[in-house]
Amino acid sequence: MATTNGEVVSNKQVILKNFVNGFLKESDMYLKTDSISLKVEQGSNAVIIKNLYLSCDPYMRNCMTPVDNNPDYFPTYPPGSPIEGFGVGKVVESEYPELKKGDLVWGVTGWEEYTLINNPQTLFKIQHTDVPLSYYTGILGMPGITAWAGFYEICAPKKGEYVYISAASGAVGQLVGQFAKLSGCYVVGSAGTKEKVELLKNKFGFDDAFNYKEEHDLNAALKRCFPEGIDIYFENVGGKMLDAVLVNMRVHGRIAACGMISQYNLEHTQGVHNMINVIYKRIRIEGLLAFDYFPQYAKFLEVVLPFVREGKVVYVEDIAEGLENAPAALIGLFSGQNVGKQVVVVARE
Amino acid sequence: MATTNGEVVSNKQVILKNFVNGFLKESDMYLKTDSISLKVEQGSNAVIIKNLYLSCDPYMRNCMTPVDNNPDYFPTYPPGSPIEGFGVGKVVESEYPELKKGDLVWGVTGWEEYTLINNPQTLFKIQHTDVPLSYYTGILGMPGITAWAGFYEICAPKKGEYVYISAASGAVGQLVGQFAKLSGCYVVGSAGTKEKVELLKNKFGFDDAFNYKEEHDLNAALKRCFPEGIDIYFENVGGKMLDAVLVNMRVHGRIAACGMISQYNLEHTQGVHNMINVIYKRIRIEGLLAFDYFPQYAKFLEVVLPFVREGKVVYVEDIAEGLENAPAALIGLFSGQNVGKQVVVVARE
Repeated sequence: MATTNGEVVSNKQVILKNFVNGFLKESDMYLKTDSISLKVEQGSNAVIIKNLYLSCDPYMRNCMTPVDNNPDYFPTYPPGSPIEGFGVGKVVESEYPELKKGDLVWGVTGWEEYTLINNPQTLFKIQHTDVPLSYYTGILGMPGITAWAGFYEICAPKKGEYVYISAASGAVGQLVGQFAKLSGCYVVGSAGTKEKVELLKNKFGFDDAFNYKEEHDLNAALKRCFPEGIDIYFENVGGKMLDAVLVNMRVHGRIAACGMISQYNLEHTQGVHNMINVIYKRIRIEGLLAFDYFPQYAKFLEVVLPFVREGKVVYVEDIAEGLENAPAALIGLFSGQNVGKQVVVVARE
Repeated sequence: MATTNGEVVSNKQVILKNFVNGFLKESDMYLKTDSISLKVEQGSNAVIIKNLYLSCDPYMRNCMTPVDNNPDYFPTYPPGSPIEGFGVGKVVESEYPELKKGDLVWGVTGWEEYTLINNPQTLFKIQHTDVPLSYYTGILGMPGITAWAGFYEICAPKKGEYVYISAASGAVGQLVGQFAKLSGCYVVGSAGTKEKVELLKNKFGFDDAFNYKEEHDLNAALKRCFPEGIDIYFENVGGKMLDAVLVNMRVHGRIAACGMISQYNLEHTQGVHNMINVIYKRIRIEGLLAFDYFPQYAKFLEVVLPFVREGKVVYVEDIAEGLENAPAALIGLFSGQNVGKQVVVVARE
């Protein structure tokens, strides 16, 4: 499968069968082997990339919801086409002046071996390769920017503040917790297995952690972990978790709403009943999507790349091998199968 | 009932009978005639004020909830004692150096004819009496600061933005709408009677208004009024209204959460199901309580007093005469009986 000019090669793809209602299942996707010409039309400004690492992210579930219910802020995947998501790839052909053959990039690509990118200005050229390339699907990519912007820009942390993170061992949560420790905060995270709870405490340096599946009363769990209340909540879960947090927030607390993974597969979302606390405690809740902060990528990298190089922040990935295993890896996010950032390796170079 | 030193006078009071569950009823309060010595202990720093105007405010319902459920951010009224709230009064005796007999003040006082104030530093001395004194329970008092801080400080309005206000003819809503018009925004309000809707359009200059009780689908009503969506929502209502608003917010919209009057009398609050919009649309929701902004009262007055004097902002009050009518006036807030700011006149001077 060489990548010389104009060659037609086979192209394995993960296709969305149809729009999805309720929980995502493996049968909602299928593998197909198509072919692709590794030739870009002259003057087209397009590039072809060979996909190396694909990122499994919770938001992707929302792109599979029928258009009527889809809130316009994510692309909707057309049934019959490859799923799209963030990934790392190598340019194999380019008519785009800013990128040349052999360049490494990260950005939105297809769940397939090769992808023709018609808007290559959305790709970030990877400048630093002394760190694992797969990190550009995580700590140095979209989840990293999300954690950085949500924590530093939205939550404006102060030393000594109490920080709570749900889905804390995930792609974003593990970073927020470590950023918070570096800011001198007291940090507690929750996750869904004993193994993840151990990871939070022993690998990521959280002050405390609990398994939310073993707590019959989330409110009580939070009161136990935060007798003084919560200053900053990094929201990845939504629903009942948000309700319990609102009761335990402190005056002038801040909530960065980054995701609500517990709600994406529900046809009827859980109601949040404790919103009145937002007034009494003068809480600020602010939603964020990483792409609003993409223009600040250089500023982000200046902060986070040294953290990675100096080992101040560690990053745990859950690696699935091969496109064949990509659907299961994506679905696993919603039942918490992944330990750390879920990545799919399509090819290593 | 002269106010010479040391005289003991009769003192009519509105007493809370017991903590309240569910909807507030007249039988939860009763009138009592007590007596009070119009003498302040020397060196005590206390003052006695004769109450002139009392303010009926929705938050007062929360002070009647049993302590266990009361979220610490409001005082709890002890059963058997007079209700407390904001009011305008005249100093009849003072051991507090900053206030002297005859001074007019506004601040938290009792629902009674005379109140001994042991912490007179919480009172604001009224400096400008060329405007109606009762305005210091409204546009120039706590609701005014709420409207000013919530709209200008939290929502940071821009010319041409789309502003929606619920409970829009109330003490706060009518001001926010007029501030928004002065800022060059497009303003729609909702209220619960035809009369109030007319008031919004014809008296307060809103661009549009609707009667929420006549809309079987709030979402559709908002879509009709805001085909482009809502940039700023001033939240006075909560519950289903907030849910409908979240669906209709625009990207980077702001919600100042000032009150949730629809929820205060409910033992089980309505769930808010559309919180996911906060993320997709990067909405900021921020709660506020007026007293956080009391230190900025002078700055507020500099903006709003000229609006009043120059007639740029009008203010509609609903005046109840006499303490006997105060319980009904307060209860009326929760069924929308009041047209404009609900005030109780205890005495006119």
